[in-house]
Amino acid sequence: MDIGTLLGIIACFGLIVTAVLLGGSLGAFIDIPSVCIVIGGTIGVTFIMYPMGTVFGSFKVMMNAFFAKKPKPLELVSKVVELAEIARKESLVALEKADVDDPFLKKGVLMVADGTEEHLIRSIMETEINFMKQRHRQGQGIFKSMGAMAPAFGMIGTLVGLVNMLQNLEDPSSIGPAMAVALLTTFYGAVLANVVFLPIATKLGERSTEDTLYMEITVEGVVSILNGENPRIISDKLEAYLAPFLRENNKE
Amino acid sequence: MDIGTLLGIIACFGLIVTAVLLGGSLGAFIDIPSVCIVIGGTIGVTFIMYPMGTVFGSFKVMMNAFFAKKPKPLELVSKVVELAEIARKESLVALEKADVDDPFLKKGVLMVADGTEEHLIRSIMETEINFMKQRHRQGQGIFKSMGAMAPAFGMIGTLVGLVNMLQNLEDPSSIGPAMAVALLTTFYGAVLANVVFLPIATKLGERSTEDTLYMEITVEGVVSILNGENPRIISDKLEAYLAPFLRENNKE
Amino acid sequence: MDIGTLLGIIACFGLIVTAVLLGGSLGAFIDIPSVCIVIGGTIGVTFIMYPMGTVFGSFKVMMNAFFAKKPKPLELVSKVVELAEIARKESLVALEKADVDDPFLKKGVLMVADGTEEHLIRSIMETEINFMKQRHRQGQGIFKSMGAMAPAFGMIGTLVGLVNMLQNLEDPSSIGPAMAVALLTTFYGAVLANVVFLPIATKLGERSTEDTLYMEITVEGVVSILNGENPRIISDKLEAYLAPFLRENNKE
Amino acid sequence: MDIGTLLGIIACFGLIVTAVLLGGSLGAFIDIPSVCIVIGGTIGVTFIMYPMGTVFGSFKVMMNAFFAKKPKPLELVSKVVELAEIARKESLVALEKADVDDPFLKKGVLMVADGTEEHLIRSIMETEINFMKQRHRQGQGIFKSMGAMAPAFGMIGTLVGLVNMLQNLEDPSSIGPAMAVALLTTFYGAVLANVVFLPIATKLGERSTEDTLYMEITVEGVVSILNGENPRIISDKLEAYLAPFLRENNKE
Amino acid sequence: MDIGTLLGIIACFGLIVTAVLLGGSLGAFIDIPSVCIVIGGTIGVTFIMYPMGTVFGSFKVMMNAFFAKKPKPLELVSKVVELAEIARKESLVALEKADVDDPFLKKGVLMVADGTEEHLIRSIMETEINFMKQRHRQGQGIFKSMGAMAPAFGMIGTLVGLVNMLQNLEDPSSIGPAMAVALLTTFYGAVLANVVFLPIATKLGERSTEDTLYMEITVEGVVSILNGENPRIISDKLEAYLAPFLRENNKE
Repeated sequence: MDIGTLLGIIACFGLIVTAVLLGGSLGAFIDIPSVCIVIGGTIGVTFIMYPMGTVFGSFKVMMNAFFAKKPKPLELVSKVVELAEIARKESLVALEKADVDDPFLKKGVLMVADGTEEHLIRSIMETEINFMKQRHRQGQGIFKSMGAMAPAFGMIGTLVGLVNMLQNLEDPSSIGPAMAVALLTTFYGAVLANVVFLPIATKLGERSTEDTLYMEITVEGVVSILNGENPRIISDKLEAYLAPFLRENNKE
Repeated sequence: MDIGTLLGIIACFGLIVTAVLLGGSLGAFIDIPSVCIVIGGTIGVTFIMYPMGTVFGSFKVMMNAFFAKKPKPLELVSKVVELAEIARKESLVALEKADVDDPFLKKGVLMVADGTEEHLIRSIMETEINFMKQRHRQGQGIFKSMGAMAPAFGMIGTLVGLVNMLQNLEDPSSIGPAMAVALLTTFYGAVLANVVFLPIATKLGERSTEDTLYMEITVEGVVSILNGENPRIISDKLEAYLAPFLRENNKE
Repeated sequence: MDIGTLLGIIACFGLIVTAVLLGGSLGAFIDIPSVCIVIGGTIGVTFIMYPMGTVFGSFKVMMNAFFAKKPKPLELVSKVVELAEIARKESLVALEKADVDDPFLKKGVLMVADGTEEHLIRSIMETEINFMKQRHRQGQGIFKSMGAMAPAFGMIGTLVGLVNMLQNLEDPSSIGPAMAVALLTTFYGAVLANVVFLPIATKLGERSTEDTLYMEITVEGVVSILNGENPRIISDKLEAYLAPFLRENNKE
Repeated sequence: MDIGTLLGIIACFGLIVTAVLLGGSLGAFIDIPSVCIVIGGTIGVTFIMYPMGTVFGSFKVMMNAFFAKKPKPLELVSKVVELAEIARKESLVALEKADVDDPFLKKGVLMVADGTEEHLIRSIMETEINFMKQRHRQGQGIFKSMGAMAPAFGMIGTLVGLVNMLQNLEDPSSIGPAMAVALLTTFYGAVLANVVFLPIATKLGERSTEDTLYMEITVEGVVSILNGENPRIISDKLEAYLAPFLRENNKE
Repeated sequence: MDIGTLLGIIACFGLIVTAVLLGGSLGAFIDIPSVCIVIGGTIGVTFIMYPMGTVFGSFKVMMNAFFAKKPKPLELVSKVVELAEIARKESLVALEKADVDDPFLKKGVLMVADGTEEHLIRSIMETEINFMKQRHRQGQGIFKSMGAMAPAFGMIGTLVGLVNMLQNLEDPSSIGPAMAVALLTTFYGAVLANVVFLPIATKLGERSTEDTLYMEITVEGVVSILNGENPRIISDKLEAYLAPFLRENNKE
């Protein structure tokens, strides 16, 4: 996980807990039924909206976005150049035994070694890119929906609390605490949406852009190897995709 | 109906009812006039917005989205392969007597058996896909409208309740309950929109994507049969549409 | 007017009036100055936004959307087939005396009888379709603007009422009724926007889609007549535009 | 200025002032610091967002939209026909001395008289149309931003007033008036956004559409003159752009 | 920095501070924990949403938008004309020693001097334009996210304050100040979003449009030099990009 992400999560929850402790006790902010209605309701609606497989899949996609190693385009470029050199010195078939970690690059290189035609390689690899983008987009959609539903259930919970409170106004001293509890679901909904669901949705979008660029460079590289292009020219060509912003980023 | 959908609906309503019972009685949350204004108003406005036929049609579309069997693309692929084998071993005409359940595939296969030309088959089948997408989009539009109108009528009902309450402030003990009843329409509107109408609209969109993919695979398969392609190649070609995400999903 | 539309309007206003009467009297909800500020302000802003001609035109467009006969594509198809038979049995010139009610079809048929070229007929008829779509879009735009302005003026009116009330808090018994009156403009704004303006905007959009389809079928039909196509083929071709959704709708 | 626009402005402000006077005095609604924070803040933010030249330019664009004469496409068509007749009877060079008021048409006609080629005339005139559209779009963007910022500063002002009021609750009789003053900025923000900035933005969009159509007709007319087309055909061709909606409008 | 921007910032904060001082003391509006939760939370969420490198990069992009010299297209045109004259009088190779400040123009001119082909120059320079646009768009995205998150954390802070206050209603005299403090986070969120983050996002968009136009003119200019076009024609061609709006702006 990115160190910035970790610090961001710690900062957000740390600040909210501190704000709570400065003016009261943490206990006053924990109300199990309120937690249940907001989290349970949000998850429940998600299962009405999307097929089960898609929902579970989206959690896997999210885990990847946070924990999978960030793609390193510069390393990819040197790997492709290395493979291009093997292909020129030995032969395309020699690529079969080459040491490639990245499964997407591996798949492409094996197709090259198998003598697959260029347009077929392109079509197969681009189909995979499209499905990855679709998976990310679907994952984003689910977390955006949850980001919209959490505040909605927060409001529903608060309305339930308010109606119950207004029915029993005899004891004035109970009004304040009852209202406080009613507001808790709104609070939970706002925190869940803004600190959890919406940032995850944004993260998935960012990650999708990065991964897509990385995979597009892979496709170009594999095709260049197939065409037996000069390794130095391949290097220049692929780095053009990075320049100037990503290059700098990678050198940092 | 998807088991996840059922659990989602039970969870949402169960949680809301539990939240109500924890702080009061269910009776305090049932107010027939409030129910009427929110549900009646929402449905009434829908009939102003859309022609009657379209509204009734959209309910049928929704029922399909929840209760119709989910399309199984892998089964479709094996069926198409089976038909392609018949076509190659016997003849295209022999397809006429083949056993095909799916009406859309049936329609395509019959056209093949009738010797219809490829461009005509494509055009007729794609017209059908477009009309299905339009129906789904229209259905989605109606449920989105209802998801916007339910909270609006909730607010209108609450305003009516507030104005009535404010006109009669003499008896302080009646203020609380009157305000509670006024808030009920807002509560109904929020629940209807977020637990019923908006999730249905999202579901229709998801279902439309799935059905469209399924029907597009069908078109490709029918055309491949017509062109007498090798069944093994057809299988590879059609599975490319599924890989890797849908494949896994289907094996689960 | 569509019976569903009429029932929808009656239901919406009936439910709101019933809600009012259940908790108070209708008189408490009628406040002429409040009515004036919301309706007057909304209309006033509309005249700032759009030229006068366009505003008046949009009311005519709305009237059409509600009261004009719904286009019946199936009748259109049989009319076109009938004309195609005349053209084949007698001559294109004979169409001049044919009995055609629909002015758009009439215009096209007269051009055919005059010997106008296909590309000119298409261009002239499509220009008319585009202008109709633009008129509908403009009308939709005006009613959407009004749907946004009515709640805005509702809020402005409520703020005026609140400020006036807060300046005179000496008499506690007047606070409730003053606040009730202040809330009335918000109530009017919400009802106008959600029961009147926004549904009209949606209706115009639906009607525009229907009319466009109808006119596009007309263009195809007129061109087919010009090209002397077989009436049976024309019928098949035009019905493809309807199948399967609109066909069913028309048979209902 | 359009008489409808003038009436709209008078109606809106008249209604608001009347509403104020019915329940209190105008003096209670005028608070110089509140006016300053809303108007000043909105303008201040606009200068942070956009370069100074662009902001001042947008006011000029707005003035044009309200005060410049509305383009009259029918007059344009007869002027073009008149010029086409001169060109045919005398020569293209004779156009140099023709009496043309509209500077855009003048520019085009002078290029024709100079013997400029068609593609160059088109390119130069379309560049000008694009810049006008961009200017209008930028103007619209600025007024939309102001329409979003005015309520924001209204809310900021109200929050300042509320915090100040809540710090000094000792004197109960001052609460009402303090709260009234706090609400004034929200009131100003709502009026400014909904009666001033957003209607101007909409007006600019409408005007842009009209002007673009007018200028596109001019381009077609100038090119037709250059090509020495028959004046009657030019008239028919240009009027097709107006039919049927704008024609009627112009005859009113 | 643009003088208008500076005045805008001073005006906004000056007006808010004045509004505060007119009704109370500045001290009542400074609450360190509230400042921490809003600013800290907003920044924390930003680090969850975006990779660290991207966030820091966006601050650099923002600094550029405010402090970098505004591009001056008219100066660019004269510089290009000057270079074109050198190229014609001496040779393309002589451009290598020409004095060019703008690094983007420099890069293009060096490629011309090196004898690079036109399509390669275009492709390399357009790649750079695209990366600049992407950087600006990403920067805009980050500031828009912050503009959405600041009010969200303002609301979260206010909810924390309200819940704490409602738990301790025994001392009525503490309610007002406690509520005032609770509202402060909402106030901070509104000011940060509307006076800082959202204006920066708009500014970046405006700046991106300006820079893109400037760089596109550069590309056209470099290609014209390469093709040895007449300097006077180059000047006319490039100024067409500016006319009439930007020209005037630059002469002011």
